[in-house]
Amino acid sequence: MTDRVEAYIDENQDRFIEELKQFMRIPSVSAQEKHDADTRACAQWVVDHLKGLGFQAGLIDIGGKPIVRAAKKGKSSKRVLIYGHYDVQPEDPVGEWKTPPFEPTIRDGILYGRGATDDKGQVFTHFKAVESLLKTEGGLPCEVLFLLEGEEESGGDALARYVSQAKDELKADAVVVSDSTMYDANTPAITYGLRGIIALEAIVRGPASDVHSGAYGGGVANPAMVLAQILAACVSREGKVLVPHFYDDVVPLQDWERQSFRKLNFNDGALAKELNVPHLHGESGYSTLERLWARPTFEVNGIFGGYQGQRSKTIIPASATAKITCRLVSNQDPARVRDLVIEHIRSVCPNTVRLEINEFGASPPVLFDVNNPMIRAAQEAIRKGFSRDTVFIRCGGSIPVVSTFVEQLGCPVVLMGFGLDSDGPHGPNEHFSLDSFRRGTKAAAQLLRMT
Amino acid sequence: MTDRVEAYIDENQDRFIEELKQFMRIPSVSAQEKHDADTRACAQWVVDHLKGLGFQAGLIDIGGKPIVRAAKKGKSSKRVLIYGHYDVQPEDPVGEWKTPPFEPTIRDGILYGRGATDDKGQVFTHFKAVESLLKTEGGLPCEVLFLLEGEEESGGDALARYVSQAKDELKADAVVVSDSTMYDANTPAITYGLRGIIALEAIVRGPASDVHSGAYGGGVANPAMVLAQILAACVSREGKVLVPHFYDDVVPLQDWERQSFRKLNFNDGALAKELNVPHLHGESGYSTLERLWARPTFEVNGIFGGYQGQRSKTIIPASATAKITCRLVSNQDPARVRDLVIEHIRSVCPNTVRLEINEFGASPPVLFDVNNPMIRAAQEAIRKGFSRDTVFIRCGGSIPVVSTFVEQLGCPVVLMGFGLDSDGPHGPNEHFSLDSFRRGTKAAAQLLRMT
Repeated sequence: MTDRVEAYIDENQDRFIEELKQFMRIPSVSAQEKHDADTRACAQWVVDHLKGLGFQAGLIDIGGKPIVRAAKKGKSSKRVLIYGHYDVQPEDPVGEWKTPPFEPTIRDGILYGRGATDDKGQVFTHFKAVESLLKTEGGLPCEVLFLLEGEEESGGDALARYVSQAKDELKADAVVVSDSTMYDANTPAITYGLRGIIALEAIVRGPASDVHSGAYGGGVANPAMVLAQILAACVSREGKVLVPHFYDDVVPLQDWERQSFRKLNFNDGALAKELNVPHLHGESGYSTLERLWARPTFEVNGIFGGYQGQRSKTIIPASATAKITCRLVSNQDPARVRDLVIEHIRSVCPNTVRLEINEFGASPPVLFDVNNPMIRAAQEAIRKGFSRDTVFIRCGGSIPVVSTFVEQLGCPVVLMGFGLDSDGPHGPNEHFSLDSFRRGTKAAAQLLRMT
Repeated sequence: MTDRVEAYIDENQDRFIEELKQFMRIPSVSAQEKHDADTRACAQWVVDHLKGLGFQAGLIDIGGKPIVRAAKKGKSSKRVLIYGHYDVQPEDPVGEWKTPPFEPTIRDGILYGRGATDDKGQVFTHFKAVESLLKTEGGLPCEVLFLLEGEEESGGDALARYVSQAKDELKADAVVVSDSTMYDANTPAITYGLRGIIALEAIVRGPASDVHSGAYGGGVANPAMVLAQILAACVSREGKVLVPHFYDDVVPLQDWERQSFRKLNFNDGALAKELNVPHLHGESGYSTLERLWARPTFEVNGIFGGYQGQRSKTIIPASATAKITCRLVSNQDPARVRDLVIEHIRSVCPNTVRLEINEFGASPPVLFDVNNPMIRAAQEAIRKGFSRDTVFIRCGGSIPVVSTFVEQLGCPVVLMGFGLDSDGPHGPNEHFSLDSFRRGTKAAAQLLRMT
């Protein structure tokens, strides 16, 4: 392809990478106070960089880490909002990095360093895409509005508050997010569905303090056993959630989805080996990908109560706690499912203990119509940028900011990720393929052109 | 009663208490290395004290803390072995003591200090009983053999090893143990049954490490949920143990026992209030005392796996562990019940996880014939010493040393306790009623007389 934009991207690749390294050298660890100044400096670096490209850019301070907002008009009246985050995960475990996390290093065409894939490297494809369009075509095809937050890795809500407050001036034809993954190293993908989530904890309280299991065993309910019985009443041994009406609002998988997932030839044995489990497990009647991407779950994230030391201690625990999350799929409503789960837990809990339930965050599932023109355009843009066919996938996880955009702006969100789960996004030796960086930049430019 | 022995006990009470205070001032905390010298000094104090009473006494060192062995022949050829322990619990929580734990203090007829009831105060009744008999009757009615260990509070096995090695020279007509309680402050008791115990842990292992519940939830078994399902398959919501053949060897309660327990007018509401639970709970068809004293149990002593922090964390835990103990009653065999429990857990565990079971200690249940002459004699001795009727009770806990004596010496063990659960034996402000001390000393003397 002798596209001028793509040629520009190829010609300037070395400089792009040097600039990305500068971006990555700033230790913008949002979870650690000692990096507060670095985090702000990183936001300012982004502002300066985008100003250098001719954007109107500045920091928005509404509590929490600053948000970078940068906009530049284009030839059409359409507007694409590109989301990303400039903050990164902590560097732990430091000792396991082969090269220092904040000294980006290239080995065999792979860029190593904190933020390489999550999300500095991915967001930088869009910066370089707009630069390439501006330098070769003299302007942007449509208006581009960048919003970069600094709290994605530390669970802040500044961006959600800002989007909610400023939703009228943020209206866009589409939101583009590159903070996800391809299906595999050779298969670029658009993620058209995300699971939602509800989180809660159930605390079963028995005796006022741990009591002797000899003196009282058999006389009083054991909170750990009661909790086990409650949990066992929530999920069958066959993996079916037993909460009444739990599945009522689930949108069934369509035939094209089941066929499309099947074509991906997901390898159950490889996953079992990767996780080091004897066999996979889940709801019967669904393939593994169907279960991971399109079926809701009831998971115990943690359980604790009583003695945890060596050997044994003869007590009846005073209490036992289960941390619970349910993954949700369209069209399950988090508030309704949370009520159903809580009501079920209450209904199966005996009156011999006291039950406390605490609710934590929730995020709705999202499911985009793959026939939406922006999503079709993205499919074509990625095909061009990567010279490979793009597949439609879903994601078992939740990206709360996507729900925020859907709810507040009412527009489709194009999830075009260029990373891989194996890039180690939160671990040591985080990395990003420079080939994906180059192809992603091309795809990002093509998408703006097609808008 | 103008019994010379009892008169001697009354006349010398003040000195007895001063001597007991000396005994209690030695911080013989066997669990703490810093008190190793104190613990040995305490053993030596006991040896010296009993030598002063004319006993042949010395320390036996076979690894672990020394055992005090002291013997003196009597008029008859019968022999009573009196067991006790000279070590005490640590003083924690130090800040909650009203007077220092190792500075014995009397307030309102109650002696406060570490070891007051467990077991220095109780064992001292026997020292003063033999002194009183020697001083008033010129000799002991039967041979008395004291064995005091220094590892009761730290779980050592020196005494068990010694009894097993020396069982032929330790043969006795009865073992007397005063390391238990009365039924209540006004009701002295003989404990004729103890529950046994088996201890184990079940570890359910899933993914090699905690994994993201979004990425993998629904695809792989959740070890915490599997553990909950396993536990729920072990005990019904009605409190019945579901392990096949678990109850096969249980000796049913006899009519006299059910009647006798009923006469104690146990107050369920008071226990619920004391434990701060809405209602008591246990196997249907049995009263609370029957369940606590004469029915086996399956208890979860601790459960843990995955996230235990604040709010939520979206992981599937790599593993989950349950600490389990079963209380056993005659004639359940610990080895057989342990096999049944392990077999059941294995049989209900799915093949999607790996199961590890670790076995810890076990102790058989004991049940003495209340018509045994020594137990009847003890009943009468306590009636005399306390001027009150004695009741026969059982104990829900286990006293492994009792099983050791039963197994190795084959003689009855008389459990005549003078303490109360409310004496705070392992907590702050441990105490012992001086009235019980005096009456207990008289009962101990009467028992030797009746042997």
